[in-house]
Amino acid sequence: MNIDKLYENVKNKGHVCIGLDTCIDYVPPSERSKSQNDSEAVLLFNKSVIEATYDIAACYKVQIAYYEEMGISGLNAYSKTLKYIKDKGCLVIADIKRSDIADTAFRYAKAHYFGDFEADFVTLNPYLGMDSLEPWIKMAHNSGGKGAFVLMRTSNPGMKDFECLEISEDRNEKKRLYNEIGKRMSLLANEYRGISGYGMFGVVVGCTEKDEAAEIRKTHSDLFFLIPGYGAQGGGAKEAALLLQNGNGGVVNSSRSIITAWQNQNEKADNKFAAAAAREAVVKMRDEIRKAI
Amino acid sequence: MNIDKLYENVKNKGHVCIGLDTCIDYVPPSERSKSQNDSEAVLLFNKSVIEATYDIAACYKVQIAYYEEMGISGLNAYSKTLKYIKDKGCLVIADIKRSDIADTAFRYAKAHYFGDFEADFVTLNPYLGMDSLEPWIKMAHNSGGKGAFVLMRTSNPGMKDFECLEISEDRNEKKRLYNEIGKRMSLLANEYRGISGYGMFGVVVGCTEKDEAAEIRKTHSDLFFLIPGYGAQGGGAKEAALLLQNGNGGVVNSSRSIITAWQNQNEKADNKFAAAAAREAVVKMRDEIRKAI
Repeated sequence: MNIDKLYENVKNKGHVCIGLDTCIDYVPPSERSKSQNDSEAVLLFNKSVIEATYDIAACYKVQIAYYEEMGISGLNAYSKTLKYIKDKGCLVIADIKRSDIADTAFRYAKAHYFGDFEADFVTLNPYLGMDSLEPWIKMAHNSGGKGAFVLMRTSNPGMKDFECLEISEDRNEKKRLYNEIGKRMSLLANEYRGISGYGMFGVVVGCTEKDEAAEIRKTHSDLFFLIPGYGAQGGGAKEAALLLQNGNGGVVNSSRSIITAWQNQNEKADNKFAAAAAREAVVKMRDEIRKAI
Repeated sequence: MNIDKLYENVKNKGHVCIGLDTCIDYVPPSERSKSQNDSEAVLLFNKSVIEATYDIAACYKVQIAYYEEMGISGLNAYSKTLKYIKDKGCLVIADIKRSDIADTAFRYAKAHYFGDFEADFVTLNPYLGMDSLEPWIKMAHNSGGKGAFVLMRTSNPGMKDFECLEISEDRNEKKRLYNEIGKRMSLLANEYRGISGYGMFGVVVGCTEKDEAAEIRKTHSDLFFLIPGYGAQGGGAKEAALLLQNGNGGVVNSSRSIITAWQNQNEKADNKFAAAAAREAVVKMRDEIRKAI
């Protein structure tokens, strides 16, 4: 199961999930003119960053929106980025937050577990209900352990609008919508558990809200967490550490703080410089998290 | 505003939204061998259906999952399908159900309101909160009235899992999660209203649950509805009619019942036959809905 591989990576390489949310503005200007178009420039930049960091990354997370923005050529760069990560023997999370039902969900699962857009994990939005996740679960199971992270409590201010609404199913217990989603995911974890002890499908829990972190971690000890919100979004090592468990149990994503690290240092950087700066940022983040645990 | 154009289309051409959720199995076998690959065969099939129906379609809805499944070449077929619909002077809803926050949401909005994947409307999943919709709203407004349909209450059995949970914000009032989403969308409609009276952004309300349909329509008289669930998913003209308003206020989507209509009639069909069968199915559906109002 991929969740077990990820668990091992965290043990050996640290908790950093490197976010390749790469837009053309993040590519050093000196490199942009060398490429035929933005998509190619982004791909070459990604390759440099991957080359410089794959030994210290628990995994990569590629945000497909940045590639969809560039149209067909962007999705070519997305596809090639995923393949490059795979060729390095690393794990990749496709941050796609897809959501649909029945046959349509089945098509999405085929799209992102196999073929041009094959990834080890995906992110999914559960709003439509558990039957929207089922085609993914079945296909993940049948394919020998692909994975997913289902949105539970995200890192944006607007998560209070719906995710955090109190639900009144049980009036004796204070319970929010995201608790119910977590509960359903824990039930699922019981059915498909890896040797690491974690369920095949984990959840997304942002590290921007400190107050509820310890409780969420305790309630869902069987779920591996994908933790966004580090760095540019305001979360820090302390907040992230509260969402980890026995030194493992989660990966912490950062994108901008890593891939734009070169901007603070050298405006005339090239990809090589940017990749070295990215590596430095990953090492710093890895060590900060280890220290905070 | 596109919502006004859609309103006019419903008045003049009926309520049918033709779903082009086209997989290779829906293309007549005799046509498949004529194309280089599945994506090309799907595109040619789509063109035949569009050619035969554009004068009686309120709009088309293209489900991107079916194209993502085929990888890069599939997304090429998706892009060309959207362009073909546009060239016919028709409106198209990109059924993408995207969801993300901040800069990522902005990227998605650029991806699907402009460029290779330009559409008139998109579908969006609101789970992450209102700030996940904001970049879309701003861009829609600035672009002269692009639109969106936000998932409110879908047509699958699993909608009961989360969408229908009772929320306890106000203990005197029975209120479900989808009601809260509808409320927020109605507030938004007040800010961006077309001359038709409907808000720039509408909502998705499935026609498979008859009991609550009339109440939902009454509570959200300012919102235009995208109504899935007709035909293969079990909904009928009566259920759909309950979600309409003064003969307008919504489009009713059907996909399989239209694009696979040829299968019940002629196993040796070609695209021309399939397109004629699709037209027949659209006319039937259009008339059934008009009769049920």
